[in-house]
Amino acid sequence: MTIQLYELVGADDRRFSPYCWRIRMALAHKGLDYATVPCRFTDKDKIVFSGQDRVPVLVDGEQVIADSWRIACYLEDTYADRPSLFGDSTGRALTHYVNAWDDTELKPAILRVIIKEIHDHADPEDRDYFRRSREQRLGATLEALHESRDEHIGAVSARFKPLRSMLSEHPYLCGESPGYADYIVLGTCQWVRRASDFELIEPGDPIYRWRERMLDLFDGLARHGGGPA
Amino acid sequence: MTIQLYELVGADDRRFSPYCWRIRMALAHKGLDYATVPCRFTDKDKIVFSGQDRVPVLVDGEQVIADSWRIACYLEDTYADRPSLFGDSTGRALTHYVNAWDDTELKPAILRVIIKEIHDHADPEDRDYFRRSREQRLGATLEALHESRDEHIGAVSARFKPLRSMLSEHPYLCGESPGYADYIVLGTCQWVRRASDFELIEPGDPIYRWRERMLDLFDGLARHGGGPA
Repeated sequence: MTIQLYELVGADDRRFSPYCWRIRMALAHKGLDYATVPCRFTDKDKIVFSGQDRVPVLVDGEQVIADSWRIACYLEDTYADRPSLFGDSTGRALTHYVNAWDDTELKPAILRVIIKEIHDHADPEDRDYFRRSREQRLGATLEALHESRDEHIGAVSARFKPLRSMLSEHPYLCGESPGYADYIVLGTCQWVRRASDFELIEPGDPIYRWRERMLDLFDGLARHGGGPA
Repeated sequence: MTIQLYELVGADDRRFSPYCWRIRMALAHKGLDYATVPCRFTDKDKIVFSGQDRVPVLVDGEQVIADSWRIACYLEDTYADRPSLFGDSTGRALTHYVNAWDDTELKPAILRVIIKEIHDHADPEDRDYFRRSREQRLGATLEALHESRDEHIGAVSARFKPLRSMLSEHPYLCGESPGYADYIVLGTCQWVRRASDFELIEPGDPIYRWRERMLDLFDGLARHGGGPA
């Protein structure tokens, strides 16, 4: 049976979850066929079988796995004869570090810049839930956050410094060819591209050139996929 | 001939360069004997033979290598039959990313907290040079930076988030055993320990427990080495 990826969907069939993009890219890297099952933020009933309430959820035959990092490890270990996502054990541990950096430093900085646009591109039925939960978490209205976005753009640029330094010397975060660490950061770029008009990176930046290379992978999967229908 | 490591020295024979500590740990990891040659900030004449003006400089027979990252790659490639610093090519690339993160995010945040203490623990002959160059670079007097240090402590804590998350699940940044990525961040911890009284990490923090493990490596090299004579 084909692998199923339960992933977030917004208005106009947009796929903007950074965590789900990590897995789309990982599945393509492993050369695995899959079908996506779109879920709105408020479609919690669709994934109740997974024992938790967040996408991505991967179903592979009898196996049900939630959490993007656990899914990546599952794919690596289950399909060990296909191209590796991590390299050796050191590469896997350091990829987990990049995962933590993206989750705790990069995405939180970007969230304050694009949060109003995420709301506007969420499925209409999700917007009340999204507004209520995010305003409570961040202690401000979406409109107030949007008005102060220019203050937060500098923090995004600061958080990109290590990536810019690294990518000025290597084509990919994983070196000569892309791996899961690259897909982690690409997921965050896709979140911005699919949910907002924010120009995250300027042309000429080594990160921009890296993103162009990433968008070309797997027949343009990230360049063309998951946009408005 | 024994390998020579030209490294920074402060007052009372203190060794507080984070870059030099990376190489001390890398040499111990490879099981290589070496002698250190202490250099003050203003002892540029001692390393003029290296074609540049910064420590660490490693001299191994006919080979002269400057820049901590280049030295680490030299040790890995030259002593390939000894324990690996990086793991495979993905591990090496991702270690370079950790190197960039430490240099562009972690150390700059910490510098603003400890800079006055670095000055006070530099060799007396270096203090004028250190003050002049750093005040120009940071656009403030050392005393003004010291007075506003509490404002910058929050930024240090924020920059530690990915490391804290990672080390809550793994004993080392490189996974089950330490590697060069661990030595990079330990170098920054040693900079703080040897040049200041700032308590960088609270007991109970996963980073604190990691640092304790790191201080125990190689018969307590980092715990006992490079302190005041």
